[in-house]
Amino acid sequence: MKVPVVDNVLKLNDEIAQSNRAMLRASHVFCIDLLGGPGCGKTTLLEATLAKFANELRVGVCVGDLATTRDADRLDRHAVQAVQINTGRSCHLDANQVKQALTHLPLADLDLLIIENVGNLICPVGFDLGQDVKVGMFSLTEGDDKAAKHPSIVTACDLMLLNKMDLAPHLTFDREQFRDEVGRLHPGLRLIELSSTDPNDAGFVHWLNWVRTAVQSQATLV
Amino acid sequence: MKVPVVDNVLKLNDEIAQSNRAMLRASHVFCIDLLGGPGCGKTTLLEATLAKFANELRVGVCVGDLATTRDADRLDRHAVQAVQINTGRSCHLDANQVKQALTHLPLADLDLLIIENVGNLICPVGFDLGQDVKVGMFSLTEGDDKAAKHPSIVTACDLMLLNKMDLAPHLTFDREQFRDEVGRLHPGLRLIELSSTDPNDAGFVHWLNWVRTAVQSQATLV
Repeated sequence: MKVPVVDNVLKLNDEIAQSNRAMLRASHVFCIDLLGGPGCGKTTLLEATLAKFANELRVGVCVGDLATTRDADRLDRHAVQAVQINTGRSCHLDANQVKQALTHLPLADLDLLIIENVGNLICPVGFDLGQDVKVGMFSLTEGDDKAAKHPSIVTACDLMLLNKMDLAPHLTFDREQFRDEVGRLHPGLRLIELSSTDPNDAGFVHWLNWVRTAVQSQATLV
Repeated sequence: MKVPVVDNVLKLNDEIAQSNRAMLRASHVFCIDLLGGPGCGKTTLLEATLAKFANELRVGVCVGDLATTRDADRLDRHAVQAVQINTGRSCHLDANQVKQALTHLPLADLDLLIIENVGNLICPVGFDLGQDVKVGMFSLTEGDDKAAKHPSIVTACDLMLLNKMDLAPHLTFDREQFRDEVGRLHPGLRLIELSSTDPNDAGFVHWLNWVRTAVQSQATLV
């Protein structure tokens, strides 16, 4: 009895994700699903990213959290529109929640939609939301073993960010080992080391260029 | 059809948790379930804790991770016995996994069993494993908004640790706000600020005393 129920839930999620994807593509909106553990710096990354793209890209954000509207409040000043999804006790966003959020977003006025998923390295990985790419995020303070301990997110993502590089002088973190383990799990995956609090630094500029190129390639495809 | 399936799963978990609890109490083993996000410092805390208790308490550990045996390997040198539970893609430990782990632990030779749950602030909260107490752990690098954004773990735990205090000079973290929000969610909850890398510091000594007192009170109860 149990397996068919789970199958239906995931199948239904994938169907809604495909419909979200079709709606976003029809509006020429590139969509990033940003995944990472709690406190790895997702919202700070997006604040700085949106500020940098202020005169260049029209960005909407959709933020998942169990409770509070803090992240959406922080991002609202920089985004065309920010939508908060409160999941209650649920540990990830699903396609239906994003579908609801899309009704609050002016898709015709956006170039880019960034979905900041619930802070969790595990559960959000398996849920297609209708995004074009998944970006995974670790931070230096979490320790150099996190890629090996969370292989699913490494294999699932299209770009990996390693945040909080500014704290490197105060931490023990084997960057070579981390990089090797990411490469073993997902050969060829681009890994960008950056600090969300240093948006003028080279690492952050690499991230901005990656987003810029991705949005442009999507615009060409459609 | 769906609700009864979920009900049965949770009811079955609770029955097995009660059986684990009875087995641990019969052997006079106090049991702590340690919960926190990925990279908040759970394993480093336990390494230092076990080293401090080396000549005082006989401690077993049971460690949950998606993949690798790294945490158990790190703890094995300090513990009477360390058991790793690899959950694959599953985001939390359940009572049945702990039941299996108990068969690998010499309960008669233990005073304390510490279960280091999978790094996740959300999913492990709802699962009773048979523990006596749940200890929740945040770290300074995760940001001062994490208690408000993860209320379930704050209300569920019997002690809250705030780790990585050694990094305070390099971070922006409003300790008053964090403390207020913890207090609002769980009035009277003890909050200990410490650094797992400074086990001789006052905060760490408070933590050791809390464990010592809890183990002793349990020994008196049985």
